[in-house]
This record gives sequence, C-alpha cells and structure tokens, in this order.
Amino acid sequence: MMQQTTYTFSSASSTIYTDADIACLPEWVSGKPIIVTDEQVFAAQQHKLAAWPCIVLPAGEQHKTAATVDHLINQLVAMQADRSTTLVGVGGGVITDITGYAASIYMRGIPVGFVPTTILAMVDAAIGGKNGVDLGLYKNLVGTIRQPGFIACDLSLLQSLPREQWINGFAEIIKHACIRDADMFAVLEQHTPDDFRNNHDLLLQLINRNIALKCSIVQQDEFEKGDRKLLNFGHTIGHAIENTYGLLHGHAISIGMAAACRIAEEMNNFYSTAKDRVIALLQRYELPVSLSFDKKQVGDMVLMDKKRTGDIIHFILPETIGHAVIRPIGTDQFRDLLTQIF
Amino acid sequence: MMQQTTYTFSSASSTIYTDADIACLPEWVSGKPIIVTDEQVFAAQQHKLAAWPCIVLPAGEQHKTAATVDHLINQLVAMQADRSTTLVGVGGGVITDITGYAASIYMRGIPVGFVPTTILAMVDAAIGGKNGVDLGLYKNLVGTIRQPGFIACDLSLLQSLPREQWINGFAEIIKHACIRDADMFAVLEQHTPDDFRNNHDLLLQLINRNIALKCSIVQQDEFEKGDRKLLNFGHTIGHAIENTYGLLHGHAISIGMAAACRIAEEMNNFYSTAKDRVIALLQRYELPVSLSFDKKQVGDMVLMDKKRTGDIIHFILPETIGHAVIRPIGTDQFRDLLTQIF
Repeated sequence: MMQQTTYTFSSASSTIYTDADIACLPEWVSGKPIIVTDEQVFAAQQHKLAAWPCIVLPAGEQHKTAATVDHLINQLVAMQADRSTTLVGVGGGVITDITGYAASIYMRGIPVGFVPTTILAMVDAAIGGKNGVDLGLYKNLVGTIRQPGFIACDLSLLQSLPREQWINGFAEIIKHACIRDADMFAVLEQHTPDDFRNNHDLLLQLINRNIALKCSIVQQDEFEKGDRKLLNFGHTIGHAIENTYGLLHGHAISIGMAAACRIAEEMNNFYSTAKDRVIALLQRYELPVSLSFDKKQVGDMVLMDKKRTGDIIHFILPETIGHAVIRPIGTDQFRDLLTQIF
Repeated sequence: MMQQTTYTFSSASSTIYTDADIACLPEWVSGKPIIVTDEQVFAAQQHKLAAWPCIVLPAGEQHKTAATVDHLINQLVAMQADRSTTLVGVGGGVITDITGYAASIYMRGIPVGFVPTTILAMVDAAIGGKNGVDLGLYKNLVGTIRQPGFIACDLSLLQSLPREQWINGFAEIIKHACIRDADMFAVLEQHTPDDFRNNHDLLLQLINRNIALKCSIVQQDEFEKGDRKLLNFGHTIGHAIENTYGLLHGHAISIGMAAACRIAEEMNNFYSTAKDRVIALLQRYELPVSLSFDKKQVGDMVLMDKKRTGDIIHFILPETIGHAVIRPIGTDQFRDLLTQIF
C-alpha cells in the first residue's frame, strides 16, 4: 500500500512515496515527463519505462562528469524540453545526482523528481536536494542543493539489483544509525542483509525509518550550516579514497566510518567497545573496514574536501553509538592521525 | 562619496555600493577574494587588480560557454579555493554571468560579488542574481538564479570603455524606462549619451535610478513567476538574433524592443505615436532599430526561448510609455506577426 509524506524544507517541499509503483508516475508529475536513466537500469526495466520519452546515459560513477551533463542538456534541447517538462531520474545515486543537477541548471531550473532503484539512493542519495558531478578524483565538486518535487520508492525495482549493490546501500543506513539512532543500530545488529532482502515489510520499515531520519536533519539545516554536516560521517576519508581506488560509494564510506571511529578512539572521545561494535556491524553487512592506501595522496585529497575551511577540516566523530559531533581538526593534525590509525 | 544600499530578496540579500572605489574591495569581501576577469579588462585595469589573485578569461560572448566554466573551475581547484573564498567578477555582463554561475555550482555554492565595468552590467547584468552560459546559439540556456553578496560600481572603470560599449548599456536603461518609468523616459529624451559621459553626477544619478528600479522588480518576484518577466521586454527576439548575427547584447535587444513595439501596434495595443517615440529614443542613443534577418530561423530560435511554455510564448508588450504587460502569444501567431512587422 503506497504511503505518501510531504516534507517541507526551507527552500521547497518534497513529496515522498514509499511502497510505490512506477506505473503511477503520471500522478506524481505535473506537465510532460522525460525519464533520465542509465543503460543498466534501462536494460532491466525497459518494459516499465517504455511509456515515456527516455534519455539513457552510460552507467557508472566514472560517467558522473560535466561532459555527461553537457550531453544530457544537448538531448533536452533536441527534445525541446522547457519549463513545463519534469525530469525524472530513474536509477541509483549517480543518476539522481546527474538528473538533479541538470534540472537545476537547464533554463535556470526545471521541475525534477526521482525514482531511486537502489537501497542507497532510496535512503540517502535521492533525498535532501544535494546533487552534482565529480571533477577527476574530486567527488561532487560541482553541483547545487535543490529539492526534487517528488521521490518515489518502488521496491520491486530492487529485485534486479546485484548483491554487491544491495550491500552497498547498508553503509548509509549504518551511518544514520551511528549518528542519530541507537535503536536502529540495535535492530541492525539483530538482522542480516538477507533478512531484509527476503522480507518486504521489514525492508519497507527500514527504508521509511531512514527517509524520516534524513529528512528531519535536512529540515533543520537544508544548506549545511550545522547539523547536516553530521551526515558526512565517514565521507571525508571515504570521498578521498572512493574515486582514487575505484571503490563503490558504500564501501568507501564504510572504510571512512571505521577510520573515523579509530580517530575518535585515538582522541579519547569514543570507547574501544563502541568502536568494535561499529566495525562488527559493518562486517556483519559484508562491508570493508580497512584499506591499504597512500596516506600522502589521501591527505592531499582531503585538503580539497568541501568540508575544509582554510586549514581546518570539519570532521565528524562518534561520541557514543547513536550520537556524533562535528570537530574541527587542523590539516596537519589530520595527517598525523591518518598515519597513527592505519 | 560612496553610497551603500542593502536590498533583501526572497532568497538572500545583496549590498550595492555606487560611486565606489575598487581599492575598497577588502571591505566588501569576507574571506579570501579571487578575481575573475577577462583579458581586455585585465589589460586596462591591471594596476588596480594587482593586489589580488586573478583568473583571466578570454573576452567576448563567444566564450560564455560551459567550456569556459570548466576551465575556471579547474583553476579554482588548482588555487585550492574553498567555501571561505569569495569570487569577485570584475567585468561586463559576460564576466558577471560566468562568475555568478561558477560560484553557484563550485562546491555547491561559494560567496560571490561583482565589480561591473560596463554601464550594461552596472544597471542590469550584475543585478538580480540571474547567471549562466550560452549553448551554441541559445542564450543563457544553462544557469541559476542566485544573489551576489555585493555589487560595487566604480565609475572610474568606465573611462576605458569603448564608445560602442558605452552605447550598448543604454539599451537596458531605455528598456527600464519603457516598462516602468515614464519620467526617466522623458529625462532620456532631453539628453544624449555624451551628456552622461561628460557629467559624473548625472551618470551616477541615472545608474542609481536604474539599480533601484531593477531591484524593486526583483524584490517582488525573484524567481520570475510574474512581473520579473517584464524585464524580458525586447529579449525574446533580441536573444534569438544576438548570437545568430553576432550582435552586441544592447544592439540585439534594441532591435527586439523596436520589434515588440511594432507587434504591439499591430495588435492595436500601442499608439503609433508612442511606438515612434520609443524608436526615436533608441536612435537618439545610437542604437539600431531594425535588421534584415531569416524569419524562419529566428522563429525556430524563439521556440527554444526560456519564456516559452508548450505552444505559448509569454511575450512582453508595451501598453503606454512606462507600462508594459505580459501577453501569451501562440507560436504560430508569433511567426505570422514576425512576417508582418518586418
């Protein structure tokens, strides 16, 4: 049974449908929809998308670039898209990021909505309005913050998801639990990825809980002046290694979260037992918790992170399970810590 | 004597300094400034800009492209620009459009201010937050609306402006008079371009009046749902011919305004005597009022204008001098009118 909730942020509102059916798309869109998707999703869902005009992009993070956005915009011109068009991104986080960004700059902004096809996009990437593309190794260096008009989660679209992508989504769920929801952390400890894969209601409940958690943070701080920064837990180191080592986003931030826990422990800010519980939970969900990497190069990458201001990195550290804080760390101190924990 | 006014729009505020001195830049910027300018302005004003890091772009509308923005963003990365950086666009409308756009997408938005160096940029392009780049012949097809933190008009920078560029700025001033200010229209009828060029106080008064007029419209309707559309008077046809025929922006919209007056007369909406007064004023300021162009091609271009929704163009027509209205015109009717008036 489809559920519908409208979240009002400071700039605009998003209506989120869960347990939705993509066949209901015409009800969610005002005006003429154009679907933006990737080759993999299109191949798997062609029968469900056939009713609408589609722009099909190459799949993968390596295509999340300004060149792909230029290509997409040229297609929109060729299709005479205008401000009465709604772009609908159907795909994972790469597609929702590209589509949201293109919609925010084409004709200085046209309506946009998302139908996420991965767990990661349903609980995180599609929500909150952050969009953008990478520049070389730098993640999301270019983009905007602009809310989609709607987000519709159709769980049947997850059926064709490879196991690796399924697992990938749990990294952001565990992140949410670590920073804001100790009860959900305990629920996750009692289950396995397969429990959620095999139980529609359990999965739906988990997705709803994560959407509500993220929306509540974005409602308080849409433009990331304060608490929204907490959602970057695991992302400072995660982003620095993601494109450098060609990791899946969930894998990269899992390693980043494990590293942040070790840094917190090192700074006498987080009990070893709590750190061990986070690492054990990541492993329970088959996520990696360490990586041998070039510390000089990763240190340099972090210097270009959006969370840096001058010589200070605003680093997210756990204090207890379910509660994280923003700590300013000098870039030199950060390089030292990186050497100590790995 | 520098004057300072802060205008509050729905999304943010802009502080506008007039009769300013660019040497005061450090007072306007919080954080570290990076100047963005073009080769012509840099050559003319190098002694005034030498104190700050500068990114110098090639000059001219033909460089107002996504490729130039990509180049600018790569420079920002190389200079380790972050959210504590303020981009300062020093130049004409092309520079303020590119700089405003780059600042709105780099790291999902960094602070920006403008020091316009042309009349056109002082009274129009730098104000109101519209930015963007062209896509081939399509003007400003990609961009955002985002207010600059400050705009500082230093009239001494106009001294090196070629006469052609000086004239170019009066097109937007006459536009403002036509749509909203019959008294200013009468003032302009009593003067010539040289009167303003030779009289600092007269020019300052004119610039202040135009800034106040534009800001008042943008305050009422920042995101162009209604009356801000009036500022597009002359721009529908103007934009269609500007890049196609390589015209200066002021020249293109002067021809566009003359055409809109003829269309208004044709539709029994505007007296012939009023139309003659507008055309005479444009000519008094040495602006062109007609052009022999390919009507099929220009009709096709207008189809891609941002002011089109489906089959309807929201066209701006004068009713009396000092008062314009928004009229929906079907695209077929528009093609007919184009044939009748030229």
